[in-house]
Amino acid sequence: MGATPESSYPLLDSIVAPQQIRHFTDPQLEQLSAEVRQFLIDSISTTGGHFSSNLGTVELTVALFHHFDFLHDRIIWDVGHQAYTHKILTGRKGRFPTLRQHDGLAGFLKRDESPYDHFGAGHASTSISAVLGMAKARDLQGQNHACIAVIGDGSMTAGLAFEGLNQAGYLQAKNFLVILNDNDMSISPNVGSLQGYLNQIMSGQYYHLWRDRIEHAIKAIPLEKVSQGVAKAAKWSEESFKRMMVPGLLFEDLGFRYMGPVNGHDVIATQKAIAEAKVKMADGPVLLHVQTKKGFGYDPAVNDPMKWHGVTAFDAEAGEMKKAVVDPATPTPPSYTSVFGKALVELAKTDDKIVGITAAMDSGTGLDIFAKSFPDRMFDVGIAEQHAVTFAAGLAAQGMRPVCAIYSTFLQRGFDQVVHDVCIQNLPVTFALDRAGIVGADGPTHHGLYDMAYLRCIPNIILMAPKDENELRRMLMTAVYSDRPAALRYPRGNGLGVRMDETMTALPIGKGELLREGSDLLLFAIGAMVAPAQKIAEILEAAGISCAVVNARFIKPIDAELLATWSKRTRGVVTLEEGCAPGGFSSAVLEALADEGITSPVLRCAVPDHIVVHGDPKRLMNEEGLGQEPLLDRIKTFAARIAR
Amino acid sequence: MGATPESSYPLLDSIVAPQQIRHFTDPQLEQLSAEVRQFLIDSISTTGGHFSSNLGTVELTVALFHHFDFLHDRIIWDVGHQAYTHKILTGRKGRFPTLRQHDGLAGFLKRDESPYDHFGAGHASTSISAVLGMAKARDLQGQNHACIAVIGDGSMTAGLAFEGLNQAGYLQAKNFLVILNDNDMSISPNVGSLQGYLNQIMSGQYYHLWRDRIEHAIKAIPLEKVSQGVAKAAKWSEESFKRMMVPGLLFEDLGFRYMGPVNGHDVIATQKAIAEAKVKMADGPVLLHVQTKKGFGYDPAVNDPMKWHGVTAFDAEAGEMKKAVVDPATPTPPSYTSVFGKALVELAKTDDKIVGITAAMDSGTGLDIFAKSFPDRMFDVGIAEQHAVTFAAGLAAQGMRPVCAIYSTFLQRGFDQVVHDVCIQNLPVTFALDRAGIVGADGPTHHGLYDMAYLRCIPNIILMAPKDENELRRMLMTAVYSDRPAALRYPRGNGLGVRMDETMTALPIGKGELLREGSDLLLFAIGAMVAPAQKIAEILEAAGISCAVVNARFIKPIDAELLATWSKRTRGVVTLEEGCAPGGFSSAVLEALADEGITSPVLRCAVPDHIVVHGDPKRLMNEEGLGQEPLLDRIKTFAARIAR
Repeated sequence: MGATPESSYPLLDSIVAPQQIRHFTDPQLEQLSAEVRQFLIDSISTTGGHFSSNLGTVELTVALFHHFDFLHDRIIWDVGHQAYTHKILTGRKGRFPTLRQHDGLAGFLKRDESPYDHFGAGHASTSISAVLGMAKARDLQGQNHACIAVIGDGSMTAGLAFEGLNQAGYLQAKNFLVILNDNDMSISPNVGSLQGYLNQIMSGQYYHLWRDRIEHAIKAIPLEKVSQGVAKAAKWSEESFKRMMVPGLLFEDLGFRYMGPVNGHDVIATQKAIAEAKVKMADGPVLLHVQTKKGFGYDPAVNDPMKWHGVTAFDAEAGEMKKAVVDPATPTPPSYTSVFGKALVELAKTDDKIVGITAAMDSGTGLDIFAKSFPDRMFDVGIAEQHAVTFAAGLAAQGMRPVCAIYSTFLQRGFDQVVHDVCIQNLPVTFALDRAGIVGADGPTHHGLYDMAYLRCIPNIILMAPKDENELRRMLMTAVYSDRPAALRYPRGNGLGVRMDETMTALPIGKGELLREGSDLLLFAIGAMVAPAQKIAEILEAAGISCAVVNARFIKPIDAELLATWSKRTRGVVTLEEGCAPGGFSSAVLEALADEGITSPVLRCAVPDHIVVHGDPKRLMNEEGLGQEPLLDRIKTFAARIAR
Repeated sequence: MGATPESSYPLLDSIVAPQQIRHFTDPQLEQLSAEVRQFLIDSISTTGGHFSSNLGTVELTVALFHHFDFLHDRIIWDVGHQAYTHKILTGRKGRFPTLRQHDGLAGFLKRDESPYDHFGAGHASTSISAVLGMAKARDLQGQNHACIAVIGDGSMTAGLAFEGLNQAGYLQAKNFLVILNDNDMSISPNVGSLQGYLNQIMSGQYYHLWRDRIEHAIKAIPLEKVSQGVAKAAKWSEESFKRMMVPGLLFEDLGFRYMGPVNGHDVIATQKAIAEAKVKMADGPVLLHVQTKKGFGYDPAVNDPMKWHGVTAFDAEAGEMKKAVVDPATPTPPSYTSVFGKALVELAKTDDKIVGITAAMDSGTGLDIFAKSFPDRMFDVGIAEQHAVTFAAGLAAQGMRPVCAIYSTFLQRGFDQVVHDVCIQNLPVTFALDRAGIVGADGPTHHGLYDMAYLRCIPNIILMAPKDENELRRMLMTAVYSDRPAALRYPRGNGLGVRMDETMTALPIGKGELLREGSDLLLFAIGAMVAPAQKIAEILEAAGISCAVVNARFIKPIDAELLATWSKRTRGVVTLEEGCAPGGFSSAVLEALADEGITSPVLRCAVPDHIVVHGDPKRLMNEEGLGQEPLLDRIKTFAARIAR
């Protein structure tokens, strides 16, 4: 099957099955890599998507497919935001125009998208643990295929990755390979001592050339020629000489055979290293250290890999991202993220107890703004949410006011620390949860839908969600000065463009806000659903249904008094939230009503389970609404039912 | 102030303030250690409590108090189950008869118990992160006291500890000391490669004596005398020779100055090592490796430290634990734990896809029973709950049926992995949550109260709780063969002594069980509260209140049909659960009622926040009941209210 003559990617287009790559010559591997890279640039510049990470793994992926058959061999790409080449080579090139769209190609790997996707991801650092599970399943089933994890140096800083390495080294799993894709840069620049360690290995990177030679030479040295002390030391432990030679000893100490570093953009060197690893894997776990550059092959991305990490459509030739056309008469409202960052700076100016903490999300959370003003009071701990939370608890225990800014979905990883270290001890840590609610293109692994449920069950915590960007500022202040654990959750994207108070003021804790009186329905809404609720009330007013609207502000403690008052003045309650249907805000309302002895009918508008997993990620108030039926229809039906 | 002449602990009793220990001579430190150890044996043999871990840290604690003043210096004892000596030396000796009782001395450290308790714990591996937070607070506040974490080798295997080390090494925190209390044994025997690494250090433990001498000798070797290859290697990195000499390089690689190992039962050697560490800490973080023995000084505990980890009262002279007096006519029912372990063995006999996974809780969960029959299918991953869950997901993705047995409170640490790796991918992992509900003496950090709330919000999962030990077996089978993520939660302690089915059978998913018909109230109960609900129904029957009783069996999916039917046949619903009031089982009931359009009044009997934190840990159906008022009174009041 030849390529079509017009194709820009003749070799790539000639691939019907990835097994063909097993037989490619070195020059073909080079050509394939070049074509894939060109396709990535051509395609992502049209659709947007993860960019620099994918340019960094082209040769590595091609080299892996040259040596393994991933219908049998197992591979897990950590996070999955570097696996576009894997998708391209496994029959999904034609679907790239639909990348990250509803019913289109997923941005991450997905088990139900391809038999080549062995494990889905989206959150970092899961690959070693998961592929170790696959390796043990394989052993128990009497099979012998390879099990491979590809993990970035940023992901390696998470405790989960360490836990996986620790057990893999102990079990001495065979045909087990961890590829450390070291690009000296996680999503944000790296911050742990592990990074310093990897750099140290780099500085001695020619060692591997000499390794065999030196091992041989060492054996030839008569020990008595070396000083007496050294000789004795050597006798005490045969390991000690090895220590002199072996870079990557940290990994060897954990039971891995370390190989590398190898230049991950030299596809021939990389495939040769993989061939060597394949032999050594027969004896036990191997860690292959591959050095790559994010954005490799596209200069603007190499020069600013963070800017080019996740992109919208861009002009590939000019190297410029396309900007949305803005009408100067209607300026874009600020993002919640930037409002948060600036508000924190404002508070911190007059309070030196405020410190900022994040886990590799400094620009994503707006803490980069804080870091510029207060570099000494900013701690980016890397991909290590558990540590971020307990570290914050330690700061709070000593009288500081830590503000821990973590996306809603990633705070899931610090859940026990929120319970055990912060809330049971009632320590005043503020959690700022960006990306709460439906996040869009990143899909189910990234939705921030569970936070209200998983935080609401914890004692001592105050839990809030602002209706707009001005209220976010007030809630931040409320949280920081509550002297208790407190969390505020707000959505991805821009605010509503409301007028901002000149002076920030705190809110009374546990008090909601009545926005509109009404006699038929009480729309009891939280956060991003308050504005839609107001709109719904207007529409229903025109249809003859009178709605009171409350901005609840607090999920915990919920304003039971306001709820009781207005549920009694109406015939039914409608709860509106951008969160999961079980256990979240709607449940808090139901509990408060039950505890007050009120038996109003309640319609819960929240995101049901099946929508979380398979649903349209579009925001609310559209045709789909929350749940199965469009939102307005559901409320109208409810109003009609309780009117009977 | 002299000791009373009669005292068995004259020097210990002479201590009014721990600062006195600063001035003790070496012989006094030895005497104090001996007296503290004797007191521990005398006291714990009367009250029960954590035993072998506390005998292991006597000298270390005394040596620490010799060099630091913990009114100013900060210390965090990881987990806190080895800190009895810390309590004894800080004015709490007299309260030991109340150990682990309600309103008595807590088993762990608690911030509100003493100004010497800087951070509470109960879960493992938090100390490094928390004390690093304290160190940064100190730096920002311009202070200079020492910040110390004492952490066991078992706790060190958790990812959180690694995350803390990684940032501490990077920040190069000064006056910062991590003491690795290496007793070659976490709660269960250690299982990771880290342990092998620590053993390796031990095997070369005389290195530290030679360290200075060798460093000197090395400098004297003319490089040209060594083989050419070695010389070149040496030039490429000055670090390389250091690698030959330095044990603990894993820690040095992470940015710590490593010291040790030192014999932690030689109080003089230990205090000298701490003195040296105190000097070196001025330059940056130090890790001091202290070797101790759990149970040291009490032979039965040394010989079986796991058996003596947590003890009830025992005969100190005979070395035998006191057994409860058992009436042979009424045999003790089996524990839920052992019923689970045996049921899993039974299932696994005919299904080689079943594997067992735990995180350092093999005997605690009953998986030790499974391990005896199926050693190859059992994985104890050490204190690493995150990894345990993702590892299970990997196994499930390859067609195995992993059963992950973790205490309810500890699964909190694997929450994100349950969401992201298991449930979003809909992988058939079974979670067996032992110690769900109120656990008793371990207190607030260990209550398994949140599981129903934090699991119920996740899509795809099936969540159950058995009413008795026979139902536990059926639910285990249901979970394993549901082909979906599933969890069952059951309490600590013994079952009800019910007759066991000869053949295990699965339950229909999402179906509850009507146990009793009634017309006034519907008692809708789950798990351990089903039996009390039946008893309540009997009592109320006598008082003229007719109660239907349902065993809900499933928290998710809840049996909405049965609930609807019987809530319509009664005037009000009472929910009963041993779980937190917000977001748990009661919320599931409220949601189902609301979604069915049923407006029955509902009384929620669950554990409210203030009871979780400060409450009586006694089990339910006693005078306290669930919540503020005794349970029966609350239900009677509710019945009277809705009758009006």
